[in-house]
Amino acid sequence: MPTTQQQASMHAVNLAQKASLIDQHWSPRVVAEMNDYQFKVVRIEGEFIWHSHPETDEAFFVIEGKLRIDLPQGSIYVAPGELYVVPRGVAHRTAAEGEAKLMIIEPGGILNTGHEGGERTADNDVWI
Amino acid sequence: MPTTQQQASMHAVNLAQKASLIDQHWSPRVVAEMNDYQFKVVRIEGEFIWHSHPETDEAFFVIEGKLRIDLPQGSIYVAPGELYVVPRGVAHRTAAEGEAKLMIIEPGGILNTGHEGGERTADNDVWI
Repeated sequence: MPTTQQQASMHAVNLAQKASLIDQHWSPRVVAEMNDYQFKVVRIEGEFIWHSHPETDEAFFVIEGKLRIDLPQGSIYVAPGELYVVPRGVAHRTAAEGEAKLMIIEPGGILNTGHEGGERTADNDVWI
Repeated sequence: MPTTQQQASMHAVNLAQKASLIDQHWSPRVVAEMNDYQFKVVRIEGEFIWHSHPETDEAFFVIEGKLRIDLPQGSIYVAPGELYVVPRGVAHRTAAEGEAKLMIIEPGGILNTGHEGGERTADNDVWI
């Protein structure tokens, strides 16, 4: 988290290019920070587990493919160039038929499985 | 700012479609919120004014067109699908030859002209 004025990077981040470097599904990688928030890219395929983040909203932006977000009220479909924010505390399950590449925006330190934990919990704060 | 569990929206936000609804350049419009942060879309053309935000980093994502961000050390070019975060306190000037459509992510309440003020200060917190 930057607490003093930083030297600015002289390069923009290409989200699709960064996502293509990830060698496995469901493994978010940090590509940029904004205050105490992180921008992560992730490749997904199939269904994740139901979980929630009681402490924070979580934003999903689709780079490639089609994201389905299952919510208690039904499913949201998010296409490339679209954004969806899951409110804090709302149970959700992300999924994609075929591969999707996403950007996730949320505070640093948030685990992909929320408070569920378990074997699908990815290493956190890994940059690419 | 959501302080309790919200009802989730059942629709994703299409950034390009939202940006196309804006009737003037340099007028950011809010399309979504995440905790106390806002996602804004804006259409720009030409050059803005130099300013800084001493209190926050500011993230720019390019939807269409090409964004130039002038910094004290030189210019960054940001293409569609690319992200750039201007660190807090760093002077910057956004610009585009022809039109560019952007998403800006920053805390709510941040003015487009930072602490410079003046005639190019846009109405804040206007949704589209």
